[in-house]
Amino acid sequence: MKNGRKNSPVRAPAVPDGRGKSETSGEFAIIARYFAPLATNPAALGLLDDAAVLSIPEGQELVATCDTIIAGVHFLTNDPPDTVGYKALSVSLSDLAAKGARPYVYLLSVALPDLPKPPWLEAFVMGLQMAQERSGIELVGGDTCATLGPLTITVTAIGMLPQGESVLRRGAMGGDRLYVSGTIGDAALGLKLLRAPWLEVEWGLSPDEGAFLVDRYRCPSARTALALPLRQCARAAIDVSDGLVGDTAKLCTASGVSATIEAARVPLSSPAAKAVAKKRELLAELITAGDDYEIVAAMEASHASGFEKEAQDHGVTVTAIGEVVAGSGEVTVVDKEGRPLKLDRTGFTHF
Amino acid sequence: MKNGRKNSPVRAPAVPDGRGKSETSGEFAIIARYFAPLATNPAALGLLDDAAVLSIPEGQELVATCDTIIAGVHFLTNDPPDTVGYKALSVSLSDLAAKGARPYVYLLSVALPDLPKPPWLEAFVMGLQMAQERSGIELVGGDTCATLGPLTITVTAIGMLPQGESVLRRGAMGGDRLYVSGTIGDAALGLKLLRAPWLEVEWGLSPDEGAFLVDRYRCPSARTALALPLRQCARAAIDVSDGLVGDTAKLCTASGVSATIEAARVPLSSPAAKAVAKKRELLAELITAGDDYEIVAAMEASHASGFEKEAQDHGVTVTAIGEVVAGSGEVTVVDKEGRPLKLDRTGFTHF
Repeated sequence: MKNGRKNSPVRAPAVPDGRGKSETSGEFAIIARYFAPLATNPAALGLLDDAAVLSIPEGQELVATCDTIIAGVHFLTNDPPDTVGYKALSVSLSDLAAKGARPYVYLLSVALPDLPKPPWLEAFVMGLQMAQERSGIELVGGDTCATLGPLTITVTAIGMLPQGESVLRRGAMGGDRLYVSGTIGDAALGLKLLRAPWLEVEWGLSPDEGAFLVDRYRCPSARTALALPLRQCARAAIDVSDGLVGDTAKLCTASGVSATIEAARVPLSSPAAKAVAKKRELLAELITAGDDYEIVAAMEASHASGFEKEAQDHGVTVTAIGEVVAGSGEVTVVDKEGRPLKLDRTGFTHF
Repeated sequence: MKNGRKNSPVRAPAVPDGRGKSETSGEFAIIARYFAPLATNPAALGLLDDAAVLSIPEGQELVATCDTIIAGVHFLTNDPPDTVGYKALSVSLSDLAAKGARPYVYLLSVALPDLPKPPWLEAFVMGLQMAQERSGIELVGGDTCATLGPLTITVTAIGMLPQGESVLRRGAMGGDRLYVSGTIGDAALGLKLLRAPWLEVEWGLSPDEGAFLVDRYRCPSARTALALPLRQCARAAIDVSDGLVGDTAKLCTASGVSATIEAARVPLSSPAAKAVAKKRELLAELITAGDDYEIVAAMEASHASGFEKEAQDHGVTVTAIGEVVAGSGEVTVVDKEGRPLKLDRTGFTHF
C-alpha cells in the first residue's frame, strides 16, 4: 500500500516531517490504521512494502480486472461511505464472477479530496470488509493519495481458476439459450428514487420497497456464487453493468452472433414489477440502464436445466430470457407477440 | 478494457444510442482506436472482454503494485501528454524493479475530465508505448471513464520472478552497505524550474541543463535493468519516490535497523551539482524531495563490488552512500566530518 506513490511503514521515522506531519499522521496512518486490517493475506506483506508478492498454485490461471468509481459519476456524493466501499469492490467482483473466477486478491487506490474524518474512514472500510467477507477476496496493496477533484476509487481485482476454464464474451453460438441472473433494473429505479423521492408514491411502492431499490443501486452484490456454474455450463458470459441490452450486444459482437430477448421474460423484482405496472414505459429504460451487476450467459440448450439447478444450489436464481441467433452483434428485444421493441438506447456510455 | 465499468466491443451495436453516441464513438472508440494497439499480449483478449486472463509459468511468482497519478498533484496540468503517459507507467515499473521483478503486464484506468482531442490521446498513448518498449510490459486491461475532477490515471503493474526471489523492504542487516542508483534530486530541481524558470540562470545552468532536470521530473525512467542485479546481490530494496531519506527510513523500519547516509556521497547529476554549488541549502531539499524513481538497496559488504559490476553491465550506475547500523528506523545524514545534518523533513506526504 502506498502513500501517494509508496508503501508505508507503521512506525514514525526518526526525523520529524517539517510540515508537521510524520509517518504516524496523514496517509501513512490511514493505511496502517484503516487499510492494513483488511490485508491479512501474507502476499500483502502487511501493506508495508512497495508491492504484493503473489504465489499462484500450479494449474491455475489468473483473471484480472480494473474498475474506477468516482463521486458524482458512479455514485452519489452523499451516498453513505460504507456503500461506496462495498460498491467499489463489487463492480470488480462482478467481472470476476462473469469470467468464472474465484476472487483471490485486490489492489485499492483511493484518491481523497480531503483528509477524511475517522467515522468516514471507518464506514468506508466496513463496506470493503463486508464485500471481502462475502466474496473471500483480500486486500494486498494499493495507493492512498490526495486529489483536487472528487473521491476516486480504483480497484484491481485478481481472481483464480483452473487453467483454460475461463468463460469469455466470445464463444456463444446460434441456438444457445440466453440466461440472466437475479433481477434487472432495480438499481436504475433506485437511482431515480434518490433523485426524485416522490416517485415512490407515484409508483405505488411502500417505503421498504423503495429502500430495497435504493439498496440495489448503492450496494450491488456481485454474483460470486455463479462462477462455478458458469464454468460448468456456459459457453460465454458478461456482467451487466451498462445495461442488459447493450451488454448482451457486447457478448454477441465478441461471439459473432446476434440475440433475441423476450421483454416479458426479463426478471423483475416485485417493486420493479409494481413500478412497471404503473408506468409501462419504464421497462425499456430498465433493460438499457446500468448498475445491475447481474450476469448474462449463453449456453447450449442441453446445459440449460443443469445450469438452472447448479445456480439454484449456489443460491442464485437464473432466468432464461431469450436465445442466440445467427447475426453480427444485433440484439432484438421482442414483446409477447414477437414484435421488436423500439429502444432509444442500448446502454450507458461516458462521453 | 472497460468503458466506465465494462470492456468494449469495437463494432457498433445494431440499436443506436439515444444520446447520439454509439459504441463507435465515446469511450468505446477511444479504447478500440488508442488503447487496443498497446494490448498485443493474448492475455488482453484484445481489450474486448471483462477481464484479462493471465497464465503464469510454473516456478514463477507475481509482484503486483498500484499507483495513481493526478493532474495538479503528481504532475503539472500543462505537462505534455506523452510525458504524462510515460510517467504513469514508470512510477509502477519503478516498484517492480525495486522488488527484483521483470515487468509482465499492466491494467490502466484513465478518468478523463473531457472527451480528449485526438492529438492529446495520440501523444498520451505514445508515452505509454515508449515506457512499454523500454520495459517489455504490455497492456492487458483497464477502464476508461469520465470524471468531474482532474485527469486521474491509475496503473496496476504486474511483474514476474522466480518463486521466493523477490527483494523486500525487510531483510537489511547491520553492517550492510547502502547503495542508490542513478542520481538524486534532479526531478525536484526540474519541478522547481517549471514553477520558477528564472532559477535556471540563478543556478548558473545552460538551457540544456535546465531541460535535463525538467525531463527527469516529467519522464522518470524506472530502473528495470536493475531487477536482476538486485535479486542476485541485495538483501533489501525500496524505490525512491517520496525522498531518499524518508524512503530509506521505510526500508530501515521494515528491516528493524537504522542507517547512516553520507551527504557528500549522494550522487548528483552535473546540473544538480552545479545548482547545489551555487546554493548549498538545496542539498537538504534534494535528498528529501520525491520523484527520483531511483532504487536504494542494502547488501552484505561482500556483495558490494559484484553489485556495482552487475549494475554497470546492465547499464545502471550505482553508488555506495552509507551503511546500515543497529537501530529502529532512524536515518542519519552526516557531512564530511561525520556531523549529523538537520533536516526539516524526510519525504513527501499527502496530508
